[in-house]
Amino acid sequence: MSSASSVIPRRWTGILDRYRAWLPVTDKTPSLTLCEGNTPLIPAHQLSDRVGTQVFFKYEGANPTGSFKDRGMVLAVAKAKEEGSRAVICASTGNTSASAAAYAARAGMEAVILIPDGYVALGKLAQAMMYGAKIIAVRGNFDAALQLVREVADEAGLTIVNSINPYRLQGQQTAAFEICDALGRAPDHLCIPVGNAGNISAYWMGFCAYAEKGVVPNRPRMHGFEAAGAAALVKGEPIEHPETFATAIRIGKPASAELALNAARSSGGGIYAVTDDEIREAYRLIAREGVFAEPASAASVAGLLSLHRQGVIRSGETVVCVLTGNGLKDPDNAVAVSQTQPMVVDCDRRAVAAALGVGR
Amino acid sequence: MSSASSVIPRRWTGILDRYRAWLPVTDKTPSLTLCEGNTPLIPAHQLSDRVGTQVFFKYEGANPTGSFKDRGMVLAVAKAKEEGSRAVICASTGNTSASAAAYAARAGMEAVILIPDGYVALGKLAQAMMYGAKIIAVRGNFDAALQLVREVADEAGLTIVNSINPYRLQGQQTAAFEICDALGRAPDHLCIPVGNAGNISAYWMGFCAYAEKGVVPNRPRMHGFEAAGAAALVKGEPIEHPETFATAIRIGKPASAELALNAARSSGGGIYAVTDDEIREAYRLIAREGVFAEPASAASVAGLLSLHRQGVIRSGETVVCVLTGNGLKDPDNAVAVSQTQPMVVDCDRRAVAAALGVGR
Repeated sequence: MSSASSVIPRRWTGILDRYRAWLPVTDKTPSLTLCEGNTPLIPAHQLSDRVGTQVFFKYEGANPTGSFKDRGMVLAVAKAKEEGSRAVICASTGNTSASAAAYAARAGMEAVILIPDGYVALGKLAQAMMYGAKIIAVRGNFDAALQLVREVADEAGLTIVNSINPYRLQGQQTAAFEICDALGRAPDHLCIPVGNAGNISAYWMGFCAYAEKGVVPNRPRMHGFEAAGAAALVKGEPIEHPETFATAIRIGKPASAELALNAARSSGGGIYAVTDDEIREAYRLIAREGVFAEPASAASVAGLLSLHRQGVIRSGETVVCVLTGNGLKDPDNAVAVSQTQPMVVDCDRRAVAAALGVGR
Repeated sequence: MSSASSVIPRRWTGILDRYRAWLPVTDKTPSLTLCEGNTPLIPAHQLSDRVGTQVFFKYEGANPTGSFKDRGMVLAVAKAKEEGSRAVICASTGNTSASAAAYAARAGMEAVILIPDGYVALGKLAQAMMYGAKIIAVRGNFDAALQLVREVADEAGLTIVNSINPYRLQGQQTAAFEICDALGRAPDHLCIPVGNAGNISAYWMGFCAYAEKGVVPNRPRMHGFEAAGAAALVKGEPIEHPETFATAIRIGKPASAELALNAARSSGGGIYAVTDDEIREAYRLIAREGVFAEPASAASVAGLLSLHRQGVIRSGETVVCVLTGNGLKDPDNAVAVSQTQPMVVDCDRRAVAAALGVGR
């Protein structure tokens, strides 16, 4: 076999490799990767025109399991393996379970997922099932499932990879690094959905780390958006029964509340609420740019439009809206929200032409 | 605002920009992009061990709409816009419709999708609906829908973006370019699913273009895999009623038959059939590597295992298996194929511990 010395291999090998110096990765950490990260920063032309400045989407739906969770999970699972754990465990009905199952499979470990019995459609578990996770449905609610995870993990020799695992946020910082690497600086504003409040905290850690080391000269103002029916941080108290169609941020007791509030405060940003109607409208606007995100992702764009109305965003500034997950995670909501439905016509040239408005 | 001159912006801007010199892109071609391409080349560790050589997945499910179709569609839609067309049209029940609708939305054009009425679940159309395509269900079968597309396109001033559009294959070449750029050479073998036979033809065009210009010193052997129930090329005749659970390659009359046969022949490869059982087993194996692909994608891995049994793959060689689409496109098959199903237990520490095999 010959080799082509004139071409430099430039294969993307994942975030643990690319951002090794910024993460708690040692020589003993397994080189775990599904080539996560390296997600596109997509210019949002129509939105940019509308708000009079440069808007980008950071599209995290392009990650291996379709959400931003992969950035934290690759590190959490790699460290679990490094520490000799035989399996990981989490309570999750969605993106976290998919990501945990994928990286456990990749690492040759077992994944155990606890879900509340009867509340999760099988389709939502398709990924975890396909990756070979052991799924246990407990006769109780989500909080009870999470409590059981905490109780059995030690005894069973399992590493918890719910958000209480500190490596999760550290891995999630890498999305901020990528934005800075792509733009050559930090944006002026970051708009991001807030559910458990971990992701906004992780981005802020990442932007601060880059700024402190002089990689970029600036830090963004951090704007986090909760769904109005699950706005624990905005209201300053836990929400017992959170409600929103954006299921990925339907969380009433955000685990990283203090970190998130601090990120908003120290950056000159804020935490705000957006209504389901605003989220739904933003979900459609994103699709009209050619991008299909899951409903929760649209909270960032709903928030941007709200900030624009309030005059917070100035002309000439750069805004990045984080789109946290792939729209394919939730096809049912897409069908429900779409304003176009198929029209049925006869199998005939004139019928189709008429439907297109060109018939005679 | 300050700028960081020490950091070189390295934002990926899509295939028309990155591979401009290799594509029919002129100064008049719109800069259309959803940042397609740049998809990961993921080492397949378990498969590599099994076949005794280095195996990679080219994971096309990471594209904006979740399939390889985006590479050809971005070029087809950009050229349609350049040529003054007001809208695009195609007959499709799956990946092509999603891609056409996304790029039309992005380009500010209309997309018209013709489908056979009653044969397509709404969930499969979630993407096209969300992107705002006009969907027309005709009372007839798929072939009739495609025939109507041909008949009405001219009269209605619409550009056809089904595979008869020549730009589609030209855009799809870029996946071959990316593989070469990542490895520094072409692989020794490329394994790829074959449905309409366009993609294998496009990859071959791409590998040949790079080799002819001396970018890489070699060309791969091209191995294409049809589903046994839809193996028109293997059997040498059209299949009237193609059958396979891998819907994306359930095609009985491949449009690019001659090009595909030529690619296989001139590269020292071949076109082969793999059974649904082999595809199903490969679909599971891919997931055990941590990667979730749609069923049709697994034909490439089923084929690799078959070639390995026949001694075609030699130790030390590099193999790339193309995974054409995202597993999230087809959650129902994932649930059906999974060997693990949730087990239901009481909401109790001992019950969960017992389920985990650590109870007393």
